[in-house]
Formats: sequence, C-alpha cells, structure tokens
Amino acid sequence: MPFDLRFTKGQGTGNDFVLFADPEGDTELTPSQIAAVCDRRFGVGADGLIRAVRSRNLEAGASAIAEARDAVWFMDYWNADGSVSEMCGNGIRVFTSYLLDQGFVELPAGGELAIGTRAGVRRVSRSADGFQADLGVWRLSGDDSLVRAKSLPVARPGLGIDVGNPHVVVALADDDELAGLDLGYAPILEPELPAGANVEFVVPADPLVEDGIGRIRMRVHERGSGETLSCGTGAVAAALAVRHWAGAGAPKDWRVQVPGGTLGVRMFDAADGEHVALSGPAELVFDGVLSLA
Amino acid sequence: MPFDLRFTKGQGTGNDFVLFADPEGDTELTPSQIAAVCDRRFGVGADGLIRAVRSRNLEAGASAIAEARDAVWFMDYWNADGSVSEMCGNGIRVFTSYLLDQGFVELPAGGELAIGTRAGVRRVSRSADGFQADLGVWRLSGDDSLVRAKSLPVARPGLGIDVGNPHVVVALADDDELAGLDLGYAPILEPELPAGANVEFVVPADPLVEDGIGRIRMRVHERGSGETLSCGTGAVAAALAVRHWAGAGAPKDWRVQVPGGTLGVRMFDAADGEHVALSGPAELVFDGVLSLA
Repeated sequence: MPFDLRFTKGQGTGNDFVLFADPEGDTELTPSQIAAVCDRRFGVGADGLIRAVRSRNLEAGASAIAEARDAVWFMDYWNADGSVSEMCGNGIRVFTSYLLDQGFVELPAGGELAIGTRAGVRRVSRSADGFQADLGVWRLSGDDSLVRAKSLPVARPGLGIDVGNPHVVVALADDDELAGLDLGYAPILEPELPAGANVEFVVPADPLVEDGIGRIRMRVHERGSGETLSCGTGAVAAALAVRHWAGAGAPKDWRVQVPGGTLGVRMFDAADGEHVALSGPAELVFDGVLSLA
Repeated sequence: MPFDLRFTKGQGTGNDFVLFADPEGDTELTPSQIAAVCDRRFGVGADGLIRAVRSRNLEAGASAIAEARDAVWFMDYWNADGSVSEMCGNGIRVFTSYLLDQGFVELPAGGELAIGTRAGVRRVSRSADGFQADLGVWRLSGDDSLVRAKSLPVARPGLGIDVGNPHVVVALADDDELAGLDLGYAPILEPELPAGANVEFVVPADPLVEDGIGRIRMRVHERGSGETLSCGTGAVAAALAVRHWAGAGAPKDWRVQVPGGTLGVRMFDAADGEHVALSGPAELVFDGVLSLA
C-alpha cells in the first residue's frame, strides 16, 4: 500500500543522507525501497538512508543491537544500494542534528548523547565545528600494502589502519600529485585484501603542525562507491597514519581537509585503550514528502 | 533575507529538475542560489531548475519572451551551474505535469497547451507514454564531423543535426560497441565546432523497423555535462539521423532507448516545414521545502 514518507535531507562535508523518524519501529523499508529513495535521478538521492528508531522497539537477538539498548535512539543506517552498514562517521553527526531538530533529544554544551549503532553505542558531544563522535578504539591492522593508482608512475607503500572498517593510507609528495590523482579507477592493493579497503591519499600541510594541531589534506576512494567528497572514518585513518609516520611528539589533534570540507580528528586515552574521535559540521538541508509504493 | 522555497522534484527518463511556482514573478533566484539548489550533495540536486511564472509578469524586451506571451505560463529554465538555457526537451514534459499537478492549467485528452520558453512557444499534448512536445522545425546543420571517442579504435563519421541546439550523431556497429563506449572523456570532433555539440552514439535495433516504428538505442555526451541518462533533443537528433541514413520509406515514428528510459520521436509536416515532436514520461517524485539565504 502506498504511503507518504516524511523525510529530512542532511549532509556533513558533502556526505549526504535521507533521514526519517520511526520511533515505534513500524516502518521498515525494503532494500529496493531504500535504493529507490537514494537514487539521485529517480528518487531523493543520498549516500545513505538513516531511520531514527527507539532502541526499545528493536527486535531482540543481535548482540550489537542489544548493546545498543543503553542508548535511547538507534541509528538504523543503510547504504544507497540497500545494503546494511554498521556505522557512518559523518552520518552520526547528521543523525544527532536530526534528533535535536525533531525535539527527540537534548544535548546541552558539555553533555554527551549515547547513540545506538550496529557497531555498538557511540557517544556524541557538541564541538566548535559542529558535533564530535567518539569512534572508539583503533588499531594498526597489519594489512600494509603496495598501492597502485592509475596516475601514479610507481606503486606506493600503504599503511593498514582499522577504525571499525579497514583502511589503507598512502602518503603523496605534494598537492599537485594529490590534485592529479585519477580516482576514476579503483586503486590496486598488493597483496590484495580479501575484504578490500578504503584507500586514503594524504599530503601534509606546510608546516605539518601549526598551533599544536596537525594539518593534512586527503582524497579517498571508498570500497564499492568510488571517490567520494568525504569519508569520516577515512579522515580518522589518515590522521592516525600521519601521526604514526611523524613519530614521538606528534600532536593528538588534527584537521583533515577533504574535498567536501574540513574534519577534526582527536586521539585520547580511555580505559580500554586509545580512542579516536571525529568532529565536523552537520547540516539539515531540506524537508520533503515522498510517496512510496 | 532567508526565505522558504517550496519546490517539487521531477524527472523524465532520468533527466531531473527542481520546479517551483512563482506566478507573479517576484522570486528570481540568483545564479549562485540556483547552483546551490541543484548541487547533488549540498542542495536538492538536479540537472536544472524550472520556475513556473505567468508570461504576463515577465519584463518586456527580449523578443523570445515577448513571443512567449501567447502562452499563459513561461518555463524559466536554468542549468544546474546557474547558467540560463533556452529549452529542455525532457524538462518541458515535467513542467507540464507540474502545472497540471498545481492546478494551474488543464489539458484534456486531444487538447494542446502552449508553453512559453526562451526558444519561443512550444505546444504540448498528452501521449500514450506521457506527454508530447512539438519542438518545431529541424534541419541538417552541415556540421558533419569525424568523431573520436576514447574506446573507438578509429574515428567515425558524424552527421550534424540542428534541433534548436547542435548535435552530431554517430552510428555504431552493435550493442557491444555501444556498451563498451567510454564517455568519461569528451568525444573529439574533427573539424572542431566552435560552439561544440552534443554527441549521440546510436545502434539500430534488429529489425530496425517493427510495426511501422523505427527503433534505436543511444548514449549521449552533452556539452558541459558529460554523459547523461537522457537528452531529449539528442534522442530527436538520433532518430532524425537514422531516418536520414535509412533513406526513402523510413518511418516517421521512432522509439529511442536511452540509459534512463524510452523516448518517442515523431516527424510531421507543418506550414513552416517538417516539425519533430518528442514524447515520453514525466514523473513528479517528491515535494520539499528548502530555506534559502
């Protein structure tokens, strides 16, 4: 039966989302409906769709979801192709902005909001540039690779970083090399990684550190999506890799310039190891109503 | 001063538009506002923006606009980059659907609706597949060229066709050649055309004519836009070129399959020469409200 879907479109550094409220959990869209909504010509158009549902209304079972019950609201995130996704570093900020806009939650300055995701509970706070989300513990994955990209004459070494999803980070010589990069073709990893990886190409600013903050520029090729304007976890991986290369004394605060804007990355110690947090803008762009069959 | 823009998003064979009603002509957007609205990540996202304005409220002066005063409604069409455009073959059908949906006009079966455009008045009627627009007189432009595309081993001859805007149509051998075409790079025309041209690559169906209707498939590279899912005037140029090559006895009714769907092209005699009409679907996808600064 056709029904009207009331939604809000939002974006963070050019990563864009269709959001809708389903507090009671009675509006589950099918993968084909999600793909139709996210289609940029025939639908609304977005990188992903986010359903805001109260955690208590999720079906019991999956452990990640059970864990999420500490959080009143659950971010039910879907990729544009209708496949499910654990987390989205840019999406969780836009989701927070949406929950606030809808009056579902409050988030006073200095406060924290727990949000349920398939990757577990994530904590979001306000930041100077918008919102900051604690993405938890990170690690060197050990999946270091040689990376070949179409416009690079020789393969470059890439550092494997895991921030919940797999990344390989490659340092380039300068802005010209970064600008000249042809990411119309997927970079080739040697050895090949069975699950693939997002590949970040980074260039340090000159100077690398200013006012105690590390500064880098990057472009990213995402598994299954190609080049995108921004990848939140990719920005985090890039900052972690450059800090790793910079060695002792490197800062724990970073500004990462992506094609769609600027993101902040911050490393800090917690009980279970070093965490990494991502901050940046979150904009609600427009409200809409779509008839879905 | 910020204001709310109420709009409708529509599409025809994957060519998509943001439409808004401004009957009294008091809401002129700036090129930068139009580009922001049409941005697919930071705005609503569309190939073009169409303002529905009563012709009587247009400023006097421009002759095309004066001519348009025979038509009660004027299609004020802008490209996604904020530049102005004369006409859009897919856009005028979606515009008609929008005028009907808003209750601004009526269009009984068998009737005609005159719509003002910068290219003059165009007449729209209902058709089996949606709406049909008379695009007026066409001509062989004489701008025949050799066309080089990245994936074609040798240059191919192209036929120059003018349907209000310039086209060069190239026949390919078969569906495999069409599917293998790399239109990530603009085709090169020899000799170069000063104003450029949209380039259509066409393949005949087998058989070419069925039930008295000619059938072709095409892909298109649009000047300044790259490959698109559909180009209305391109479909018209493609059908005209194939009829030209087919010679005497070729039909005057054509079905053109583009990546975004199927369009109909019909040639018919009128007082000022042979006209060509384009028909196809027109869908209104969703309604929205956007705050513009």
